[in-house]
Amino acid sequence: MRSLKPGAGRGPARREAGSAPVAAARTEEARLHGLNACLAAFARRPQDLRKAWLLESRLLAFKPLLAWCVRQRIGYRVVDADELARVSGSAHHEGVCLAMSPLRGQTLAAGIAGLAPGPALLAVLEGVGNPHNLGALLRSGAHFGLAGVVLGANDPLTLSGAAVRVAEGGAEAVPLLRARSGEDIVAALRAAGFALAATLPRAGSSLFSAALPARTALVFGAEGSGLSTMLVAAADLRLTIPGSGAVESLNIASSAAVCFAEWRRQHPLPPA
Amino acid sequence: MRSLKPGAGRGPARREAGSAPVAAARTEEARLHGLNACLAAFARRPQDLRKAWLLESRLLAFKPLLAWCVRQRIGYRVVDADELARVSGSAHHEGVCLAMSPLRGQTLAAGIAGLAPGPALLAVLEGVGNPHNLGALLRSGAHFGLAGVVLGANDPLTLSGAAVRVAEGGAEAVPLLRARSGEDIVAALRAAGFALAATLPRAGSSLFSAALPARTALVFGAEGSGLSTMLVAAADLRLTIPGSGAVESLNIASSAAVCFAEWRRQHPLPPA
Repeated sequence: MRSLKPGAGRGPARREAGSAPVAAARTEEARLHGLNACLAAFARRPQDLRKAWLLESRLLAFKPLLAWCVRQRIGYRVVDADELARVSGSAHHEGVCLAMSPLRGQTLAAGIAGLAPGPALLAVLEGVGNPHNLGALLRSGAHFGLAGVVLGANDPLTLSGAAVRVAEGGAEAVPLLRARSGEDIVAALRAAGFALAATLPRAGSSLFSAALPARTALVFGAEGSGLSTMLVAAADLRLTIPGSGAVESLNIASSAAVCFAEWRRQHPLPPA
Repeated sequence: MRSLKPGAGRGPARREAGSAPVAAARTEEARLHGLNACLAAFARRPQDLRKAWLLESRLLAFKPLLAWCVRQRIGYRVVDADELARVSGSAHHEGVCLAMSPLRGQTLAAGIAGLAPGPALLAVLEGVGNPHNLGALLRSGAHFGLAGVVLGANDPLTLSGAAVRVAEGGAEAVPLLRARSGEDIVAALRAAGFALAATLPRAGSSLFSAALPARTALVFGAEGSGLSTMLVAAADLRLTIPGSGAVESLNIASSAAVCFAEWRRQHPLPPA
């Protein structure tokens, strides 16, 4: 299975180090699986759909998609669970697999430039390798209106099929913003008015008594190794989620959910 | 692999419906794996250790445990990864497996009776089947000082090896409190001064503007199906975590972490 590669899609015309050429991108495809992940991808970008495979039991849930396939002459196949595991590359396919053009990659610069003025929350990840944690963070991020996830130029983390499934649609709502090689992420965020808030397992000031700025970039490191000294030193705020000490730390996805919620509590969504 | 069975261990003298006889319990064992899960289990209850298997690379981390094994004449073996996968029943063993007496089961009545007066937080789970979600909830619960996880008499959820590993030690700190068959959980919690707060994906009052009582029992249902009408109707508070609507709901473990944090924000831990 090919995984979704942010930065390798039909993105900005300027090519980034390590990204696929734009010409090749037209033939690239990503295979998505997972019920909510596939529903969200089709709802947001039906024009990216190339092919669909699904169990008979999913026909009802994907009726609008099938109608679209008929109108647009896109192939779909009703298959059994084994075939679905094969085409999706996962036993956790939840009855559906879609071949789609990959999610458009965004550079950090383009992502920041596209933000509306006013309150915005970003999450900067350093060394978070686990796709399930990325997926869980994207799901919570989508819920709380996270404006993007910032990754370093050489960070190996990508939107794998598992991450997209675990995000339950959140991967469609929260863009990954990748820095260019050599780009100073801290400077770029500061220039856009963001305060950097490093999250630390201990010895930071309490999240519960911190006034979180309207434009905050929360910085999360890998469990265990934590954040680099550089990022901790550069941060405007060093935050710790108060706890009992009964466990080493929170899981990064839980920690992110708690921090996102606290920022959102201080900067509520406008009424719908 | 045998899983940890709360309620089946060397528990209170009174036997509960469905629990193993006390005599048989002496020969029962649970196999734990995962670095932090095993470190925490040994730290809290070394007397329960029966046997240990570990990779050579883990000898240093478990030096105190090995010294204990020598003093107490408990067997331990240095094995390779394949053997460890076999004895632990998991490929995610993290280099260690311990055979231990199972965690003592607690009845809801005994768990409630053992609580100190004053602020306390409980989580009532209804239909949460996923052991990873239980593990993640126990880890966050341990961090925020959750007093217990309440389960119905017939709820099939148990502390599997995977749940204990994912809890990263949290399963040792947060007891599972199981209701007796036919016991009225709502009445038992009310009698102990707990307000019931049902968590709903939408249409509840905002978690961010709710005053959470000092003794709160948060009620969580399965993702998708949600809580039974009975529990929602019986609840004193119906809470929703405000969100953008970009995803159906939060993952239950993330949702629990956010609710635990909010209660803890309103009822801080005493300074250490």
